[in-house]
Amino acid sequence: MLRQIFFEIQAECPHTRARAGLLHTAHGVIETPVFMPVGTQATVKGLNQRQLAEELGARLILANTYHLYLRPGHELIRHLGGLHKFMSWPNAILTDSGGFQVFSLSGLRKISEEGVAFQSHLNGDLHHFSPESTVDAQLAFGSDILMALDECPEYPVSHEYARESMYRTVRWARRANNHFRRRIAEMTSRHALFPIVQGSMFPDLRRECAIALLDLDSDGYAVGGVSVGEPRPLSLGMVEATEPILPRDRPRYAMGVGMPDELPQYVARGIDMMDCVLPTRNARNGYLFTSEGRLIIKHAQYRDDARPLDPNCSCYTCKSYTRAYLRHLFLSGEILYASLATLHNIRRYMDVMREIRCAILANSFLQYLNDAAQTSGSVSDLHPGDSNG
Amino acid sequence: MLRQIFFEIQAECPHTRARAGLLHTAHGVIETPVFMPVGTQATVKGLNQRQLAEELGARLILANTYHLYLRPGHELIRHLGGLHKFMSWPNAILTDSGGFQVFSLSGLRKISEEGVAFQSHLNGDLHHFSPESTVDAQLAFGSDILMALDECPEYPVSHEYARESMYRTVRWARRANNHFRRRIAEMTSRHALFPIVQGSMFPDLRRECAIALLDLDSDGYAVGGVSVGEPRPLSLGMVEATEPILPRDRPRYAMGVGMPDELPQYVARGIDMMDCVLPTRNARNGYLFTSEGRLIIKHAQYRDDARPLDPNCSCYTCKSYTRAYLRHLFLSGEILYASLATLHNIRRYMDVMREIRCAILANSFLQYLNDAAQTSGSVSDLHPGDSNG
Repeated sequence: MLRQIFFEIQAECPHTRARAGLLHTAHGVIETPVFMPVGTQATVKGLNQRQLAEELGARLILANTYHLYLRPGHELIRHLGGLHKFMSWPNAILTDSGGFQVFSLSGLRKISEEGVAFQSHLNGDLHHFSPESTVDAQLAFGSDILMALDECPEYPVSHEYARESMYRTVRWARRANNHFRRRIAEMTSRHALFPIVQGSMFPDLRRECAIALLDLDSDGYAVGGVSVGEPRPLSLGMVEATEPILPRDRPRYAMGVGMPDELPQYVARGIDMMDCVLPTRNARNGYLFTSEGRLIIKHAQYRDDARPLDPNCSCYTCKSYTRAYLRHLFLSGEILYASLATLHNIRRYMDVMREIRCAILANSFLQYLNDAAQTSGSVSDLHPGDSNG
Repeated sequence: MLRQIFFEIQAECPHTRARAGLLHTAHGVIETPVFMPVGTQATVKGLNQRQLAEELGARLILANTYHLYLRPGHELIRHLGGLHKFMSWPNAILTDSGGFQVFSLSGLRKISEEGVAFQSHLNGDLHHFSPESTVDAQLAFGSDILMALDECPEYPVSHEYARESMYRTVRWARRANNHFRRRIAEMTSRHALFPIVQGSMFPDLRRECAIALLDLDSDGYAVGGVSVGEPRPLSLGMVEATEPILPRDRPRYAMGVGMPDELPQYVARGIDMMDCVLPTRNARNGYLFTSEGRLIIKHAQYRDDARPLDPNCSCYTCKSYTRAYLRHLFLSGEILYASLATLHNIRRYMDVMREIRCAILANSFLQYLNDAAQTSGSVSDLHPGDSNG
């Protein structure tokens, strides 16, 4: 099958697994490594689409199949011309499979070979996701990148449970892939389906899963089941176990990561795509990421602080407002606080990703990585070149 | 005394009391009649200052002395360079006196000749406002236009109470004015203090109050104590009773009004300035003002409505998003809903004011007024030329 999205490698770091590339989609070209802001309910909380596209330069965002399937419903979105048109978003969209939310948000849920039955967190209604139905929902959205339904086990689980669950996830991925290929054979629009490597925190299962998914010859591969409460070195270890097996010429997506100082760590392990709710959620809760570290805006020390949030940042928030004003808005519960804080936090993530990409292209990524680890305190030891297997 | 702000009349309607003018302040020239968006806590809820200034063209906004005095405090705002700098607002600011909020928001309050003692609605702390202290707070803000402390009686009250209260408001206005003139004699920045005409719903008291305040030779005059729950014809009647007494060459401000279809009614009665929380508060609650009337976004009929909120509006919201998407955001409790809805509602008010101003300048205001009344159903009879006494 022809590639539906095409990944072009522009540069590879000779010392780590990092690469810089371009991801060609039907909704534009995305520079990688890329961080995807999370737009759960077809909106990145606190920002409008113009801010996201023009001020922040986001070229790819993530939306949640579970949430949009429940409200407003994938059929309504299809009827209104797809998710891009519905939310007035000109650039690319990746949707998750809904699996993670079913396992983390819904009440009762019951896994079978067929799929997963669950109760809506909104009203308790019963629903069912199958590998095929979540492909259908995501095609109704018109997503550029779809994710295959997976089971995302909690942490920790036994090796036995993790193995059974991983095998099911592989079977589901095959069914999703078969259904996806039948569906897009009739379509003129371009979409890609990424399967998800699972296996909990067991490197042998991760490797077995990755090898099994290679058969699908997918346009990209995801590493899921990380960021579920495990210590950070474990998540990085799972990426290290998986990534060398994945095809070099396809993008790799680490789901749900990470903190700003972790972003280069994942890139160093061959990851091209990441997403995380931290910049948006932390922004709203008063935790701001700056080039000088974390800043908790409610602290009394900022009461009369006339400096910008981050003197090294050129976002609208930092160019226009003081810490004292942001603190006032936060303490007053004002909507503008959430908007300005989110704008800044996402900008911080975008800036980090730009720095990483520039360093890879300039062949100075190892230096960047070492400098970043020195500044932040390394989250784990990285042995460049060791991640091959 | 030299005028601190200068009001230039550009055109007067020959059939009504309406005028179009320019209000020259230290923070720019304001085209009148003008609607002032309300920025209670140094932010117009849901919008940033760039949207307000650049997208909506707001040249004058209102902020609340009561709220900002309590949090973050006028001394902090003074320390940080004044309210314009604190909130990063380049254009003009009018602050109310705090009186209205003391009477409507605070718990215990006790009026004396000296002023009013009250409990903070935030934490119950005891505070005191005097005519002099609210001038001081507003000068600490650096407001372009300050309001004199007044008592805003609830509706209805007896003629006797209204008279006593009005006399006290006049005595307070004299004290505020004396204090203000002493204070600004030492300052190089330009500020104006507007006294407030009270008198509840009694035309004789309104006239007596207006005549008493003429002595102050103020740069502008306000009509307060309307929009306190009385029937709309009564509010308009109070303006009719007051306005002919006020100096022709000073701006007149009707406080806390009104609905979009009432704006031309007030202008027809000689009002140059208005403010109201309706466009912002109603936006957040799902009530949207369009050129075709009110739209309640949660209604099921908008579920799959792919039209813009108002096809005749060119705001960012209407140019970019559908009713179906706005309804989804509203039902999902998303921040973006409040932001997009507020942007549109304020734009609607701004558009109405622009139409009114153009009509006055084009000598077609009476026609505009009659057309508007036909469209909306007149809120009261207007007898052009009758409002002279």
